[in-house]
Amino acid sequence: MTVVKIALLGAGTVGTQVARLLSEQKEDLAARSGAQLELVGIAVRDVSAPRDPAVDRSLLTDDPESIIDEADVVIELMGGIEPARAYILRAFAAGASVVTGNKALLAAHGPELYEAAAQADVDLYYEAAVAGAVPVVYGLRESLAGDRITAVLGIVNGTTNYILDEMTVKGLDFDEALAKAQELGYAEADPTADVDGLDAAAKCAILASLAFHTRVSIDDVHVHGIRSIAKADIESAGRSGCVVKLVASAKRRPEGIELHVGPTLVPLDHPLASVRGAFNAVVIEAEAADRLMFYGPGAGGAPTASAVLSDVVAAASHKVDGGRAPRELIYGDIPVLEASRGRSSFQAEFAVRDEIGVLTKVTGVFAAHGVSIRAVVQTVGEDGLARLTVNTHEALQADLEATLAELADAEFISEVHNVNRVEES
Amino acid sequence: MTVVKIALLGAGTVGTQVARLLSEQKEDLAARSGAQLELVGIAVRDVSAPRDPAVDRSLLTDDPESIIDEADVVIELMGGIEPARAYILRAFAAGASVVTGNKALLAAHGPELYEAAAQADVDLYYEAAVAGAVPVVYGLRESLAGDRITAVLGIVNGTTNYILDEMTVKGLDFDEALAKAQELGYAEADPTADVDGLDAAAKCAILASLAFHTRVSIDDVHVHGIRSIAKADIESAGRSGCVVKLVASAKRRPEGIELHVGPTLVPLDHPLASVRGAFNAVVIEAEAADRLMFYGPGAGGAPTASAVLSDVVAAASHKVDGGRAPRELIYGDIPVLEASRGRSSFQAEFAVRDEIGVLTKVTGVFAAHGVSIRAVVQTVGEDGLARLTVNTHEALQADLEATLAELADAEFISEVHNVNRVEES
Repeated sequence: MTVVKIALLGAGTVGTQVARLLSEQKEDLAARSGAQLELVGIAVRDVSAPRDPAVDRSLLTDDPESIIDEADVVIELMGGIEPARAYILRAFAAGASVVTGNKALLAAHGPELYEAAAQADVDLYYEAAVAGAVPVVYGLRESLAGDRITAVLGIVNGTTNYILDEMTVKGLDFDEALAKAQELGYAEADPTADVDGLDAAAKCAILASLAFHTRVSIDDVHVHGIRSIAKADIESAGRSGCVVKLVASAKRRPEGIELHVGPTLVPLDHPLASVRGAFNAVVIEAEAADRLMFYGPGAGGAPTASAVLSDVVAAASHKVDGGRAPRELIYGDIPVLEASRGRSSFQAEFAVRDEIGVLTKVTGVFAAHGVSIRAVVQTVGEDGLARLTVNTHEALQADLEATLAELADAEFISEVHNVNRVEES
Repeated sequence: MTVVKIALLGAGTVGTQVARLLSEQKEDLAARSGAQLELVGIAVRDVSAPRDPAVDRSLLTDDPESIIDEADVVIELMGGIEPARAYILRAFAAGASVVTGNKALLAAHGPELYEAAAQADVDLYYEAAVAGAVPVVYGLRESLAGDRITAVLGIVNGTTNYILDEMTVKGLDFDEALAKAQELGYAEADPTADVDGLDAAAKCAILASLAFHTRVSIDDVHVHGIRSIAKADIESAGRSGCVVKLVASAKRRPEGIELHVGPTLVPLDHPLASVRGAFNAVVIEAEAADRLMFYGPGAGGAPTASAVLSDVVAAASHKVDGGRAPRELIYGDIPVLEASRGRSSFQAEFAVRDEIGVLTKVTGVFAAHGVSIRAVVQTVGEDGLARLTVNTHEALQADLEATLAELADAEFISEVHNVNRVEES
């Protein structure tokens, strides 16, 4: 049986589980790939640090290049841009295929890496880079290869979904929910990358590149985090039959691709509404297939390792049988829209003076900017102020912003609360 | 650019959409597969019958063999066992790869076809055979190739899910919901294959073969349909925080594979509980990946055609780049359990005489047969009879049946109502 040599770069949470599964499932992996998968080395920063017993200490090295040059398949789980990028390029140059879970690197340097893999006629696989074990990279790259994708909507950050879910189900404040997420290890001490939407934006760029066959980088994604979401927003969403989710959205419009990450009102009968806790889910809308959803654990050592190993099996079987991973295609070359040209339905809440004619004045400002209103609800809050909840039809972001700018200055408005996108069900 | 010749067998609902997409998406398909996909013929029974304009009449033929012998990839969408089986074997013998959506054929003759494809060194793809556009065949065949699957649970029949959903949401009787499904075209005039669970059983066999790398045929699946589900069962499930779904279940037990299709109580927080209308969903549980769900339209011309075309792109790209579809592996060779050796939690309802000591007598019978009780609820119905709802812990099917046989004869039991499996959340 052909031997396929594997080099593993990184032995953190995921790397440790990859090492364990390579050893525990040796026979199954051989049967499925047609090759004996032999782990030739594990590159780590500190070979003397304590390790899980699943990591064979005799394979540890602090010289990644030596094991890359020996390998048929390199698994890159170091994270970060450099030196991960240099090692992957070195692997390609040496004729090795690469499996990576490095979303930051792909979002920043994806096209360069795809091109280098194609030049070297080897595979680049990265199922683990988006939504852990959920096979959404496959879904976009292969399962809809005969279709035309119109939209990708994802809950791709488990930390923020956990926080919003706790706020929704238990009525916690943002700060309480964040503290709980940190306690449980779902959120880091510095939660910026998660709660400000940057992690989701990197994944959004990867998903959009795959869906629309166009170069998209993280800088093309318009990002809003969830720090400003208050209990009142969750409650007001609930009154509209919605839950608040951090949605990464990539949509194909006639005029280009719209990319957005931000808190979004999702109707309860939308498949994304039922995604609980730290789970991930991605909805793909395509012309023929209609709407598909992929759902599962978006993080965690073992689930992510499962995704890595499925890629390793595919890459190894190509070493045996020939064949290549699907081409990374950028023939689409569709323009990416400015934030202002984005379109969505919106929900906005205003505290207004409770006096005759305010409703007419507010709706008049919307109309003047060409923003069509679907529904307005007026309630009186505990503070005695009237509260207007306005739901719009689909409108241009620029028009909505002009509306809000005018309203913010209007003497009949006490306060403009959070304004959020609303996804259609 | 390499030309890959495609023969299409069948121009029904799905075949017509395949012909349309092959023509409309010609350039995208070429970019993704690396080949010019050329439709060389469409075999139909009656070339003079009226057709959708998407079907190019000049390609119609009533001589399938002539176009099979010319093709690089044969798409079989005729359905039925023969002559579909003979045509597929002929395609393999001529060196063509095959894409099929024929679940009945695969459930009956899968191993023969896999073997013939392997001998001829060509591909057999069949994503469309289970759950339409939902890429669950891929999920089992490739995306979890580095993992060990422990269970597959699916809502794989849209007709029955529609009927049960109508009963649940609108409180309809089975007969009313069936009539509505027939009116809307979700159910056939003779609904036997759907409502008696046979369609789901064929899909269950295909899913189990893939998940456990073992030969499984439809005859190995223990099947119960939904005809006996009454409004009272739906209501009683609701009181237990569950919905009733027709679940196709394949589980790996220490002693073998358990295969079951039948009405099942699914807790509201289980991902399958939220599958509405005619949608399909499949949950896959694996040791490392934990629990994944794939969700989408399980039928319909365009969605199913999308699945067919993704397989065509994969098969065509192998004609260009080399490589093969994943091996169909039966190395698992795990025994399939008799129905009596199956295990599940159950919910059973009894109408009992409302007299002192009945509860003790009923629970005593369960205990005598080694069936452990999780909860008992006693209510008094409109008929003045007391109604006992018994929920068990996981128990052997044989033990449960012995319990029920004894209770059916007991003088303190007026009636044994439906007994259903309960899935853990």
